[in-house]
Amino acid sequence: MRMPHAETLPAGATRGVAVGLFSASRHLLGLDGMPRTTLIEILDAAERDLAHLAADRSPRDVLRDATVVIAMFEDSTRTRVSFQIAAKRLGATASTFSSHGLSLSKGETLRDTLRIFEANGADVIVVRHPSPGAPAYLAGQVESAVINAGDGMHEHPTQGLLDLMTLRQAWAGRFDGRRIAIIGDVKHSRVARSAIFGLTTLGVAVTVAGPTTLLPTHVERLGCTVAATVDEAMEGADAVMALRLQRERMDQGLLPSLAEYTRVWGIDAARVRRMRSDAVVLHPGPVNRGIELAPDVADGERSVILDQVANGVAVRCAVLRRAAGRDG
Amino acid sequence: MRMPHAETLPAGATRGVAVGLFSASRHLLGLDGMPRTTLIEILDAAERDLAHLAADRSPRDVLRDATVVIAMFEDSTRTRVSFQIAAKRLGATASTFSSHGLSLSKGETLRDTLRIFEANGADVIVVRHPSPGAPAYLAGQVESAVINAGDGMHEHPTQGLLDLMTLRQAWAGRFDGRRIAIIGDVKHSRVARSAIFGLTTLGVAVTVAGPTTLLPTHVERLGCTVAATVDEAMEGADAVMALRLQRERMDQGLLPSLAEYTRVWGIDAARVRRMRSDAVVLHPGPVNRGIELAPDVADGERSVILDQVANGVAVRCAVLRRAAGRDG
Amino acid sequence: MRMPHAETLPAGATRGVAVGLFSASRHLLGLDGMPRTTLIEILDAAERDLAHLAADRSPRDVLRDATVVIAMFEDSTRTRVSFQIAAKRLGATASTFSSHGLSLSKGETLRDTLRIFEANGADVIVVRHPSPGAPAYLAGQVESAVINAGDGMHEHPTQGLLDLMTLRQAWAGRFDGRRIAIIGDVKHSRVARSAIFGLTTLGVAVTVAGPTTLLPTHVERLGCTVAATVDEAMEGADAVMALRLQRERMDQGLLPSLAEYTRVWGIDAARVRRMRSDAVVLHPGPVNRGIELAPDVADGERSVILDQVANGVAVRCAVLRRAAGRDG
Repeated sequence: MRMPHAETLPAGATRGVAVGLFSASRHLLGLDGMPRTTLIEILDAAERDLAHLAADRSPRDVLRDATVVIAMFEDSTRTRVSFQIAAKRLGATASTFSSHGLSLSKGETLRDTLRIFEANGADVIVVRHPSPGAPAYLAGQVESAVINAGDGMHEHPTQGLLDLMTLRQAWAGRFDGRRIAIIGDVKHSRVARSAIFGLTTLGVAVTVAGPTTLLPTHVERLGCTVAATVDEAMEGADAVMALRLQRERMDQGLLPSLAEYTRVWGIDAARVRRMRSDAVVLHPGPVNRGIELAPDVADGERSVILDQVANGVAVRCAVLRRAAGRDG
Repeated sequence: MRMPHAETLPAGATRGVAVGLFSASRHLLGLDGMPRTTLIEILDAAERDLAHLAADRSPRDVLRDATVVIAMFEDSTRTRVSFQIAAKRLGATASTFSSHGLSLSKGETLRDTLRIFEANGADVIVVRHPSPGAPAYLAGQVESAVINAGDGMHEHPTQGLLDLMTLRQAWAGRFDGRRIAIIGDVKHSRVARSAIFGLTTLGVAVTVAGPTTLLPTHVERLGCTVAATVDEAMEGADAVMALRLQRERMDQGLLPSLAEYTRVWGIDAARVRRMRSDAVVLHPGPVNRGIELAPDVADGERSVILDQVANGVAVRCAVLRRAAGRDG
Repeated sequence: MRMPHAETLPAGATRGVAVGLFSASRHLLGLDGMPRTTLIEILDAAERDLAHLAADRSPRDVLRDATVVIAMFEDSTRTRVSFQIAAKRLGATASTFSSHGLSLSKGETLRDTLRIFEANGADVIVVRHPSPGAPAYLAGQVESAVINAGDGMHEHPTQGLLDLMTLRQAWAGRFDGRRIAIIGDVKHSRVARSAIFGLTTLGVAVTVAGPTTLLPTHVERLGCTVAATVDEAMEGADAVMALRLQRERMDQGLLPSLAEYTRVWGIDAARVRRMRSDAVVLHPGPVNRGIELAPDVADGERSVILDQVANGVAVRCAVLRRAAGRDG
């Protein structure tokens, strides 16, 4: 790419000069290997954003000079809306791209598409993609900061961070000595993977339970223990995270029936009572009511599912600010 | 849902405290049963918004601290664009959601989806849904104010309000003693239903005419009279509203042919001359030119179809302000 | 359309009064016949916008009182995102409409849809449409300014302008005496047509080359010369523009195979070396890597493809300002 004269720099070109400001640490690709201090920094920043969101609901000026492109190469509702609202509350110029029937179907490479967004002036590109590792690959190809909004079965780091934020609120700020049960389809869940990486780094004991066909082989290597039953996993726990059951697991022969799944692995009020009296119930959504969670549990007083959503906007404010170099 | 400490309230949580500000009257679910004084209040507010829109085309600050989610569970062009422009002109943070192939296809309940928008900080949720009563049900489930943007064959209240606003302009402010003819597929029309509710409340005499198969049984119970022919309905009227003919009515065996419909029920210039000399022609759009309206009528000097559209932005400003508690 | 009283003018109505401000010259329908002075004016304005975009990345106020509707009746990624970002950087109220499965499928005429946008208050309507001439037709039907964002095989004037802007930067401001080769499917390319109109007006010599089946009959009438081979076309040129090869040309029997196309008409490093030592490589995107351009050429130091994208935002700022009457 040729650089024009300084007085006619294209919108994106100044970033070429100032690339040092957009070091690798501006990207958010996953929670695997993220140091404890970085996790805590982001959670603290997100709490400040949450306070801002509650105190003054007008858009801020903090990202007024930043352009955010939200690029969804896979269906998304919740995550897209959450990032859109976060970007707008920070005052950023935000533009959303969905690949359904658009350019990529014309055979353009993913890298070329991201470079187009960069050349359009994107400071931050939020990417959801069905291929594990796509955001990490792209982070090496563009100078824009890249935020992973879910890549196949790999990671969904902003979801992991909002889980941590919600647990820290429920647990009065203390992670050490806590124990959480994660129930269901851990094998195919990027949500579970990001949560496990963050939780184990922060010293939380993680117990997983689910059908053998839906647990990763060697799940212990993620730092978890495996329980044989949901009752055993939840006994005395400080929290439980139910994972969404994808119905296609039945078609794939990984599960005999929904009814059996619910009986064996579903979380009802009786099972919730096995946990500590102040324990909370998380779910990444969307909930299959009556399958992985009984309706009275999903809506019960132990449920922090809607807190997760509200915290999600705050976490995304924090990571957008960080990606744009405004996490001060 | 657990409430975190006051200093870390999530974005949506303050509304839990201040729920009294979002009383049932903030919702706009339909015009059925809406008192005359409320109708007039909204029309007066919409006129003020119309003057604002004409005098200063920059975004206002009135909803700068409000978040509006426009949730379309059914195709929409006109209504979506109109709400988007209204929200942006008021300075609100607006985010649009369409359900085509998105989360609801994953089996999430409608209620859960709306609660997600609420937890994302939505003060006002605009909902279009194919099921009659969906917005009313949802209004009882979330603390956000809910505006019905069309629910099945039930109501489309902002369309009804813009019809009233357009008629009041054409009729020099006076509804009493006026008479309007509504022609066509009243049975399947939420537009007709909302208009009839508002018009009869304001003292306008409503005459309907159309194929027997496309009139509701007991249509008189809505407060209308039924005319046998379109000529009889329009004779001496102060306005006529042509309804859109859905082509699938033919496939359903409710109509013999388009040509016959146009000959018997279509509105041409000769029929327009049966009305009073200052009478106007309304249509909710999109117009099937040459079917329910002759092209020279749709574009003629009696047509107020484009005024309806311009008034639609003003009405949506007024109802958004009302929903957010800023109708002062 | 009846005009309401002055004190209650609908949003769009003031434009009816001030129609003189929106003369035909506000529209941007194509580069065919556009005078040299107008081309240069727009390029100069775009350079000022580019400097603004680089110097201050916050939204400006220049179009704060303007509403822009981006109406896409055909798939678009790059052009849509570029117009959205340009509109937002200028501070305009922007709303995007895509026709996929929306109102037009209900049989509404295109003209009616545009008039709806106008009545919603659109000062500028950006239109992409599969039918050649659709934007020109619409420009005569609405008072909003119309910008052609691509109409069938006819023109894509903002793309042509960004090509001119990129070449002027590469060529140190001088068009006279320059020569460009345009390679590939000229026949079906609105990009090529707009570029050829602009280039020939500015005195650039244009040589085209490509399979006979993909060149327009009488292409010389566009002011070009035709070369028999790509080597001949590129020999000593100051720039080459490779056009995108649509794969459906194979199915249409216009080409024997991709492999043969690449061998005969593809641009590799050896062919680039036939040009002058400071010549540049353009491509409208998306690139079929390894077909019309070798990967090392697309990413090489002669490539100005990403400059084209960055210039595209600036050009769209300039034409939006011009359309809204703010090109001062």
